[in-house]
Amino acid sequence: MIKTAVMGYGTIGSGVAEILEENRDVIAGQAGQEVELKYVLDLREFPDSPVADKIIHDFKILEEDPEIQIVVETMGGLNPAYPFVKACLMAGKHVVTSNKALVAAHGTELLAIARKKKVNFLFEASVGGGIPIIRPLYRCLMGERIEEITGILNGTTNYILTKMDKEGETFENALKEAQNLGYAERNPEADVEGHDTCRKIAILTAMATGKEVNYEDIYTEGITGITDIDFKYAEKMGASVKLFGTSRMKDGKVNAYVAPVMIGNSHPLCSVNDVFNGIMVRGNMLGVSMFYGSGAGKLPTASAVIADIIEAAQNLKKNVPMGWSSERQTVEPMEKTRFRYFVRFAGSFRNKEQEVKSIFGKAEVIELYGMDEFAILTAEMEEGAFKAAAAAYNEKAEAQSDYGIKQTIRAMM
Amino acid sequence: MIKTAVMGYGTIGSGVAEILEENRDVIAGQAGQEVELKYVLDLREFPDSPVADKIIHDFKILEEDPEIQIVVETMGGLNPAYPFVKACLMAGKHVVTSNKALVAAHGTELLAIARKKKVNFLFEASVGGGIPIIRPLYRCLMGERIEEITGILNGTTNYILTKMDKEGETFENALKEAQNLGYAERNPEADVEGHDTCRKIAILTAMATGKEVNYEDIYTEGITGITDIDFKYAEKMGASVKLFGTSRMKDGKVNAYVAPVMIGNSHPLCSVNDVFNGIMVRGNMLGVSMFYGSGAGKLPTASAVIADIIEAAQNLKKNVPMGWSSERQTVEPMEKTRFRYFVRFAGSFRNKEQEVKSIFGKAEVIELYGMDEFAILTAEMEEGAFKAAAAAYNEKAEAQSDYGIKQTIRAMM
Repeated sequence: MIKTAVMGYGTIGSGVAEILEENRDVIAGQAGQEVELKYVLDLREFPDSPVADKIIHDFKILEEDPEIQIVVETMGGLNPAYPFVKACLMAGKHVVTSNKALVAAHGTELLAIARKKKVNFLFEASVGGGIPIIRPLYRCLMGERIEEITGILNGTTNYILTKMDKEGETFENALKEAQNLGYAERNPEADVEGHDTCRKIAILTAMATGKEVNYEDIYTEGITGITDIDFKYAEKMGASVKLFGTSRMKDGKVNAYVAPVMIGNSHPLCSVNDVFNGIMVRGNMLGVSMFYGSGAGKLPTASAVIADIIEAAQNLKKNVPMGWSSERQTVEPMEKTRFRYFVRFAGSFRNKEQEVKSIFGKAEVIELYGMDEFAILTAEMEEGAFKAAAAAYNEKAEAQSDYGIKQTIRAMM
Repeated sequence: MIKTAVMGYGTIGSGVAEILEENRDVIAGQAGQEVELKYVLDLREFPDSPVADKIIHDFKILEEDPEIQIVVETMGGLNPAYPFVKACLMAGKHVVTSNKALVAAHGTELLAIARKKKVNFLFEASVGGGIPIIRPLYRCLMGERIEEITGILNGTTNYILTKMDKEGETFENALKEAQNLGYAERNPEADVEGHDTCRKIAILTAMATGKEVNYEDIYTEGITGITDIDFKYAEKMGASVKLFGTSRMKDGKVNAYVAPVMIGNSHPLCSVNDVFNGIMVRGNMLGVSMFYGSGAGKLPTASAVIADIIEAAQNLKKNVPMGWSSERQTVEPMEKTRFRYFVRFAGSFRNKEQEVKSIFGKAEVIELYGMDEFAILTAEMEEGAFKAAAAAYNEKAEAQSDYGIKQTIRAMM
């Protein structure tokens, strides 16, 4: 029998305890022996919970208990998750975590300690909730040169964008609704500003390149600037707007970013709606493959933790090669990334046609009935070139006391 | 260095040889050592191919070469694939195959031999082409009780149905187009009658239950009866028709079938179009997860073979627990499976309302403008109950020299 401990009895931690009980037979079958929960470390008491008699408050108890072979970290945040996880690994215990902030900030060090101590540091649940994506990268797509990973990696923002798309809601109303349903935090910044997605795409990029990726190197833009008007244009174009975390890898170079992107309805990620997540992986031989499912939620995320517990149990005496080294992967500046651009202008196209064409070059024009504005969809160009064009347009407009560009959204269609 | 041999230098076999060369470094990194192709067994010569000097015609050469540790079978069919694969396993060689017919017919025996000989018999490429689905079932969704697997598992039929849906084509024309593009065989029976899908869902069901599933126990219906008129109704209902291979598992019972099913546009598999495959897996904790990608094609399928080669290389001295036992899983009779039913009738609903309602119970009615026919969508019921109702209707119609039911399609919406 393998004894395990859960640190942090919140949503995911309690889900892990629940599945360990509910699927006890399946887990024992796969792990090769029974997996028992011995401790739950939390500051609080849970007198009415099924784990009431397992609650401990002192980390030292589990750290120093040689019976505990696998520790689950579901506290979130960096403190005390980071020192606790590090101490567990140093003590020769396997650690499974759902904590993307921890993996993004200290993954390199923790992976190295795990290797040295011949244990495993596993984090399937840190990206894509219940969707298997970390393990497919090191277990399934093994012979592939991964060329691109693009994901809808945040359920909160995807819910908001879906509401705006399907029901014509404003960002503010859709956010309020997400908050009322418990999909968004009272302080939604980490989600809507793209920080959550940024950490996740950093982890996936590091998995794909085998090198450390500093999430701070990844250009990150959220969805707070997306409006209901943008979706009206999108509808007319047979398109939608999704928050992408993307990484393109070629010849050792990486272009990575987090940003709302306008995509056509036939894009495989376009039908990923509501709180669901979808992750597209492109390999040099495989072409495009996509993984879809519940990107958050108690039981789906806990299910991914359980799969990691089983992998650790199957490899109690050895470190499974996965993750990345301490070599740093440079990320190309955003200016070098290529997109098409959806751009909205005040006024009528007829009046501004010449100016817009001379500055942005060949572009599709989209007009909405009864609106004193229009939009274009440029040809593909480097972000740097687009920015220069946009600045030139705005400068000229200002000189003429005219309105500048109203909106810009990157597009892939 | 690991030496390998490919049996059958057709589309997939040549793809395997190509990737072994093209991604040599990635494969060596994952496998822990270089993987070299030593022989290609084929009846033909390939003097202008990159493997010209590796071609052998005599199976004994590779069977008796102790250097060959991993054999790839990409011949297809049962003879000589079955005796060759069996002999390789008996000789203590790992075998990787893309051959669903072989796995469906002899998987139980071959898995047992592999276990006994402490080698691996792997077949990721036999289902879903390049989409990882076999390995996720034993590596990723490990702690889950799998409750359902539903897949669009055949690219040819999905291409035909997509053409009928999006372009209003008849079955015959869509099939011709698929044949012209090389997506369908001259004799398309294995695809369009559902036999290919049947073998694949049998394999997935055996993976999920851990027991042998006889594919002949699975009710199988193809798409030859689906017409362009059906898609006109589907469009009106916001639905489409897809060929599903489905298996539902509960309390040791399995309901499995292959049939065209009418599904709503919001179903996660509805956006799986053209030659793509999609496989939905529902776990008791995870909820729904979906895997999407190229279900066929030279390089995607070969990529799945390569991943198996790497798994074998990582486990040269041990059998990785996976697959199923020789215990037989019974499959419930189709009569016990529950669906809604889309049914088309001649004449006008007004004239037949009473009769239809009295026989089929409460149902939605769908009428197309200008057509002397109508359709209903019944409530959910067991197939046995529906069949009895349909027989009663047809009997009554015949007695009145009236038309019987024009079309029936199972529906999940």
